[in-house]
Amino acid sequence: MSEVRVETDSMGAIEVPAEHYWGAQTQRSIQNFPIGTDRFKWQPPMIEALGILKKAAAQANGQLGELPAEVADLIVQAADEVIAGQWNNEFPLVVFQTGSGTQSNMNANEVISNRAIALAGGELGSKKPVHPNDHVNRGQSSNDTFPTAMHIAVALQLHRKFFPALTTLRDTLAQKAQAYEYVVKTGRTHLQDATPITLGQEIGAWVAQIDFALEAVRAALPGIYDLAIGGTAVGTGLNAHPQFGQTAAQRIADLTGLPFASAQNKFFSLSAHDALVQLSAALRQLAGGLMKMANDVRWLASGPRCGIGELIIPDNEPGSSIMPGKVNPTQCEALTMVCVQVFGNDAATAFAGTQGNFQLNVYKPVMVHNVLESIALLADASLAFNDQCAVGIEPNLPVIQRNLDRNLMLVTALNRHIGYDKAAAIAKKAQAEQSTLREAALALGYLSNEQYDAWIDPQAMTHN
Amino acid sequence: MSEVRVETDSMGAIEVPAEHYWGAQTQRSIQNFPIGTDRFKWQPPMIEALGILKKAAAQANGQLGELPAEVADLIVQAADEVIAGQWNNEFPLVVFQTGSGTQSNMNANEVISNRAIALAGGELGSKKPVHPNDHVNRGQSSNDTFPTAMHIAVALQLHRKFFPALTTLRDTLAQKAQAYEYVVKTGRTHLQDATPITLGQEIGAWVAQIDFALEAVRAALPGIYDLAIGGTAVGTGLNAHPQFGQTAAQRIADLTGLPFASAQNKFFSLSAHDALVQLSAALRQLAGGLMKMANDVRWLASGPRCGIGELIIPDNEPGSSIMPGKVNPTQCEALTMVCVQVFGNDAATAFAGTQGNFQLNVYKPVMVHNVLESIALLADASLAFNDQCAVGIEPNLPVIQRNLDRNLMLVTALNRHIGYDKAAAIAKKAQAEQSTLREAALALGYLSNEQYDAWIDPQAMTHN
Amino acid sequence: MSEVRVETDSMGAIEVPAEHYWGAQTQRSIQNFPIGTDRFKWQPPMIEALGILKKAAAQANGQLGELPAEVADLIVQAADEVIAGQWNNEFPLVVFQTGSGTQSNMNANEVISNRAIALAGGELGSKKPVHPNDHVNRGQSSNDTFPTAMHIAVALQLHRKFFPALTTLRDTLAQKAQAYEYVVKTGRTHLQDATPITLGQEIGAWVAQIDFALEAVRAALPGIYDLAIGGTAVGTGLNAHPQFGQTAAQRIADLTGLPFASAQNKFFSLSAHDALVQLSAALRQLAGGLMKMANDVRWLASGPRCGIGELIIPDNEPGSSIMPGKVNPTQCEALTMVCVQVFGNDAATAFAGTQGNFQLNVYKPVMVHNVLESIALLADASLAFNDQCAVGIEPNLPVIQRNLDRNLMLVTALNRHIGYDKAAAIAKKAQAEQSTLREAALALGYLSNEQYDAWIDPQAMTHN
Amino acid sequence: MSEVRVETDSMGAIEVPAEHYWGAQTQRSIQNFPIGTDRFKWQPPMIEALGILKKAAAQANGQLGELPAEVADLIVQAADEVIAGQWNNEFPLVVFQTGSGTQSNMNANEVISNRAIALAGGELGSKKPVHPNDHVNRGQSSNDTFPTAMHIAVALQLHRKFFPALTTLRDTLAQKAQAYEYVVKTGRTHLQDATPITLGQEIGAWVAQIDFALEAVRAALPGIYDLAIGGTAVGTGLNAHPQFGQTAAQRIADLTGLPFASAQNKFFSLSAHDALVQLSAALRQLAGGLMKMANDVRWLASGPRCGIGELIIPDNEPGSSIMPGKVNPTQCEALTMVCVQVFGNDAATAFAGTQGNFQLNVYKPVMVHNVLESIALLADASLAFNDQCAVGIEPNLPVIQRNLDRNLMLVTALNRHIGYDKAAAIAKKAQAEQSTLREAALALGYLSNEQYDAWIDPQAMTHN
Repeated sequence: MSEVRVETDSMGAIEVPAEHYWGAQTQRSIQNFPIGTDRFKWQPPMIEALGILKKAAAQANGQLGELPAEVADLIVQAADEVIAGQWNNEFPLVVFQTGSGTQSNMNANEVISNRAIALAGGELGSKKPVHPNDHVNRGQSSNDTFPTAMHIAVALQLHRKFFPALTTLRDTLAQKAQAYEYVVKTGRTHLQDATPITLGQEIGAWVAQIDFALEAVRAALPGIYDLAIGGTAVGTGLNAHPQFGQTAAQRIADLTGLPFASAQNKFFSLSAHDALVQLSAALRQLAGGLMKMANDVRWLASGPRCGIGELIIPDNEPGSSIMPGKVNPTQCEALTMVCVQVFGNDAATAFAGTQGNFQLNVYKPVMVHNVLESIALLADASLAFNDQCAVGIEPNLPVIQRNLDRNLMLVTALNRHIGYDKAAAIAKKAQAEQSTLREAALALGYLSNEQYDAWIDPQAMTHN
Repeated sequence: MSEVRVETDSMGAIEVPAEHYWGAQTQRSIQNFPIGTDRFKWQPPMIEALGILKKAAAQANGQLGELPAEVADLIVQAADEVIAGQWNNEFPLVVFQTGSGTQSNMNANEVISNRAIALAGGELGSKKPVHPNDHVNRGQSSNDTFPTAMHIAVALQLHRKFFPALTTLRDTLAQKAQAYEYVVKTGRTHLQDATPITLGQEIGAWVAQIDFALEAVRAALPGIYDLAIGGTAVGTGLNAHPQFGQTAAQRIADLTGLPFASAQNKFFSLSAHDALVQLSAALRQLAGGLMKMANDVRWLASGPRCGIGELIIPDNEPGSSIMPGKVNPTQCEALTMVCVQVFGNDAATAFAGTQGNFQLNVYKPVMVHNVLESIALLADASLAFNDQCAVGIEPNLPVIQRNLDRNLMLVTALNRHIGYDKAAAIAKKAQAEQSTLREAALALGYLSNEQYDAWIDPQAMTHN
Repeated sequence: MSEVRVETDSMGAIEVPAEHYWGAQTQRSIQNFPIGTDRFKWQPPMIEALGILKKAAAQANGQLGELPAEVADLIVQAADEVIAGQWNNEFPLVVFQTGSGTQSNMNANEVISNRAIALAGGELGSKKPVHPNDHVNRGQSSNDTFPTAMHIAVALQLHRKFFPALTTLRDTLAQKAQAYEYVVKTGRTHLQDATPITLGQEIGAWVAQIDFALEAVRAALPGIYDLAIGGTAVGTGLNAHPQFGQTAAQRIADLTGLPFASAQNKFFSLSAHDALVQLSAALRQLAGGLMKMANDVRWLASGPRCGIGELIIPDNEPGSSIMPGKVNPTQCEALTMVCVQVFGNDAATAFAGTQGNFQLNVYKPVMVHNVLESIALLADASLAFNDQCAVGIEPNLPVIQRNLDRNLMLVTALNRHIGYDKAAAIAKKAQAEQSTLREAALALGYLSNEQYDAWIDPQAMTHN
Repeated sequence: MSEVRVETDSMGAIEVPAEHYWGAQTQRSIQNFPIGTDRFKWQPPMIEALGILKKAAAQANGQLGELPAEVADLIVQAADEVIAGQWNNEFPLVVFQTGSGTQSNMNANEVISNRAIALAGGELGSKKPVHPNDHVNRGQSSNDTFPTAMHIAVALQLHRKFFPALTTLRDTLAQKAQAYEYVVKTGRTHLQDATPITLGQEIGAWVAQIDFALEAVRAALPGIYDLAIGGTAVGTGLNAHPQFGQTAAQRIADLTGLPFASAQNKFFSLSAHDALVQLSAALRQLAGGLMKMANDVRWLASGPRCGIGELIIPDNEPGSSIMPGKVNPTQCEALTMVCVQVFGNDAATAFAGTQGNFQLNVYKPVMVHNVLESIALLADASLAFNDQCAVGIEPNLPVIQRNLDRNLMLVTALNRHIGYDKAAAIAKKAQAEQSTLREAALALGYLSNEQYDAWIDPQAMTHN
């Protein structure tokens, strides 16, 4: 028995490794696109999505009389195995291939075809009883299947991985905001001491920012739920049954439990991927918010003695290979590095999104790659940040109190009583003389000791 | 009479030009920030927005008993003049100043104060009867007023300028799509000839893409309608009447006819401007769509003889200073240049959006500057493109027909009848021999002349 | 006398305002491109550069016998006036026009032609004795003249404005580094206290970073000095005298005192503007360095009481409209806002740089616009930062000393004597017990009092 | 025998898998940073670079008397195995960890320590006779070792992989330019027909653009050759022998054959990574040039019948899963997808580069990750493009000739003889009447048949 098998496609015959299910076009792609093979092979989310798509397509074709029931059943059976991850290593192709994802679509067609043939006891590569193009790809084109799989993969990862992780972090922070609702502390604007706030208010702003970004992510979902399937080669649906797109989309919705539907304008679905562009932008927005939060955390925890030092964060590991006893805000650093990566991924996605021509955008693989990477990194990093940092955040109460007591901006409470200009004079005098506000106020004769007590009340200034 | 006047602020006295209403802090900013003075002075949209804000604040303070009626009335009167654009040249400051926009807020306070003083017959710079801080800025901080003005300016420009321009272009294209609903032509994928579509379908995809982007812009509006006003210095609302934020926001809504409201979390409103980040991303998405459309137009109009040449676009000007008679797709070029500018503006905006610290993001001016610029450029360029190009787009019917007749991808219609592999053989033979599909099909014996006529019907292939 | 004048071009006749020198093509562009007219009209640098180019071209054509001496002289005379800025308001066109800058090239041709006609006592619009195309544009195409003018404008702005401003700032910082060479202070890594450095070392790193970026800017100059002139329409030099490119480039070098030369590959000079892309990237790199420096300054100056507070920066203006006496790092804010703008401008430039097709990149105007804007903003903001902030930076010695005394990372000096693990134990004990390092070290018995004195010497630890 | 082993660090004891050499800090990082574990583990280039660094450091410390010879020798022996790739699976950590790369530095220290212990017959985890901190990390900090390894990895990949690949592609194109030096064809500007060029000139512009970008990459090398080693924790070199940095850098130069040297300003080397920022920008510039080239190739090869069709590119695979016989420019697509990825990677790198604070930039891992990815992808994709596309590019001579014959812009040659305006009239008449230039010229009476032959000579117009 030979170690290779001959497979054929419209360009002729080619040898493929006998132990693999993939066929001629996959093999050509392996040979033609040795680009980033160590890191850019498609990950399970896209493989699973192709499996779901092919299963739904077979079901729809079966239902519409476009495929014999036994062929449809064989495809469904093989596709189920693909969905289950059983054949992940039969998908050897990389992101940087044909810009429509044609070869990955064919990879799915070939693996499912040969696996179905195997299940039926046939000969691999014979295309009988299940042909990769005429059966598995029935009524389809890479141009509509690949973007359909893109949307399936993205939506599933958002729901399975992203929203749970981000909600976990958001909830942790919300609990912290509540727990420290009455911890009054120095506010800071322009990095300068400002009027008081509570730690709860400070943390609550992070929660509000994350919530707002998650809302933007959710606002991008309707576009993701619109599927290209049924458009075939250019959007007209040529060679597909007229009900195929709608039927297949419904099957996908059933298989995933998500409200996928057939897109209204298939020409748009093939020639542009603005749903991904919008989603990528929402992920970038979230990254911006997480970056602000993580920066706040590490600055508030800066020190331990020569920084702000108002927050205590968990010590997870030795901080320095040379400075003994140093503890660094490493989860903040990992998270903010993820954030800049998401910015980069978004730049690639948005750029790619502009480069469609006529009936097709041929940057599909790189777009979905970047969006999936951003989803995964944001989810992973948020969860790590949650588990290793956020849950352990605590106020350093003595430092907070000391800073509050020294804060000259408490003077702002006097504006309403003595006017801005006199209040400014007090603050300036206190800073110049390194005295307290009270001393400066009394020295200037702008108010009495009793008025000072009555008017300057940090807790009240937080309006909490 | 001297040519200068002495104004004072909390840092002391400073001379200002006697003929101007601005005061000490504006003057200091002129001297301290000579950055991009030729192009980066605030434009009317932000000046008007500051006027609206100050008017609404005076009304709210008057209503809540925080200002005497006569003071509030004077402020309203002066603010109305600012809104009307009467004092635009009293706003000499540039974008690149304090990152909270403090000096532009004070510019508004000073001009309105001095103008109100003038209306009351008082002495400029005396701060009586209308004090820039204690009255015009009553219950406010730059930290909440400036972002409020940012949102007002952006929302007004979107409604007055952006949506009308984009709707005009979108409607023109929709009319073209309908007009050419039955013009069957070659589809193109990977820049290669593909199965037929109609010109209406092709143009309709552009419309769908613009519609989808406009929907994303609209999805960003709720965040824009949330106003920071009432948060004052750090978000707590210190020194403002408890109802001030809500009351002022309602007044702003009344003055603009837009559903502005007081933001739920003022800490978030000051420390991040993600509503602008989201909007900027939506504008970028639109720019991507317009770029794709404009590129399609110029490629379809390429030639006149050595390109695709399927569209005719208006000749608006001589195309070349050296090649006589050349006509270039100049509106496409201006529009796509605007699109890359919008990408750049968005990059700046999103970057700035990440850089908040604690209770304040100090990139406010550069963020609103870029968003307003993108709004204006997209509106202007879309309208110019509409008027000088889109309305005049016409199909070049002889070229379209010739291309369609020669298109080998009509063979795709045979898949369902003779299978993919035989169809591929026909196409390859025809291309190799530079023959027609019919000739190749018959020569290969895969179908009869009658079958060819029955099965290959370009109009039917468009599923229109 | 009528208020309009009829001018003609290859598309026919058109009325232009009688009081202006511009002609038919300029007028068409005004009407066809009403895009960003308030802020995007070409500024003096590009107008001057077009003047220099046209003067040099006339001189070269005269020298090569391509123009009669009297025509060449008239052009030179008119061009000199353009260079002097005398006719700036005769250049009404905006950036967003034809992507080759054709209309601005023609604007220059028309104004110089008509001005030369006026100087010769002829009739405006008669094209006699000086024709805008046949004489002023002799041997030229927009495709080579506009990129030539781009390079001239950029190089002149770099030398006149950018390098002097950046050198001023760099030198100020270098002086500060020297002045504070022996001020020992806490180093900080990960925002956490680290081993000591001197303030001179800290500031010196900023100088090194700026120097490195300026080197990158200088590395981009050779590409800028390569001129497209002589390539005409597509790079072949059709219709130009064979020596025209070289001769004109030499003239430009003479007029500017800069080593401009004729580019080796004119096809490249027209179809791509990678010299600008490279320069833009170098400006972005500088912006990144300035941002880091400005951030360091404001963080080191944070406080006055609840921040790091180790630097004192000048108080230039009242910091807050609500918080009396607050002083903010406003020059840092203006500078960092400029930096994000430069990032945005660079994103637009680099994107545009990718979009050339065949023999032309039609994003010329938007590319040079962004590069010139970045140059101007970086120069202006650096100078403002220098004058209003950098020159006044001073160490807050009491705070620096207090922080240094408390810094636990002095323990690092013990690694070499007692090993990393024991040193770590000392630091951890001191932090846990809020004691001094000495107390913890002695309590643990790892070293004697005398050894502590001998081994822990902050000044020595700086290796200064 | 147990399956785990207890290792300790300054935070205490932790269990590690007994079969692995890594120690406590690596194990903590595995547990603390489960972020992108499927794709973001460090690749061989960084592992090798850490090995080279540790070897050089041990050699330098041995030479300087900082380590006993037998300890240094053991470290060298273990490091050699790391360099050889023998222990790649002992490096389980990911990019998204501490921002200084501390844990990967410790991973190297731990693996080398334990491997050296094993070689010496000691007990794993005993830190005897080779201690990970006190010996392997002797005179080092993550803050200087990690950026040193970054530079080593980047320089080696550039020299081993990047320059050879790009030179191969560049040379192929240069050969094509020479081969088709005399193929006269239609030039195109604004996507419109323009005056003639040769195919050699067209391809030569691509070569010139690639050469110019490679020059920019080379201009970034000096910064890459500057090494941080010797700076230790904050740049002062605390705890390192005064000659350590220079000696180790020299060893690294010896080991790699590249001109590495000790950086002049170590404070800069730790707090910023502008050498990577500059290199990343140069890679982005190259990506822009490759994108333009690949776009030109696919547009020139567009068709086969309804596009430009002047180039023939290899058919490497079936182009469409639905359109039989379609051949797509897939190598162009893969390459341009890589180009947008490089743009994204650069955006992340440049952003990260701005975010240093004080003595450290804590985005080191994400910066080197993106730069290494861009290097690898550009090299891989350029080589694939070379092998599967560029070498097979051929002119489609009949199409080229037909297009040239029909090109109206040949009229430009008449400017010098009859003036621009008359030449324009000829071109316009020919286009309007769909006649030839000759017919229009003669009909207008502007020149004779003989003059036409003499003046219109496409070959001559190329000035080749």
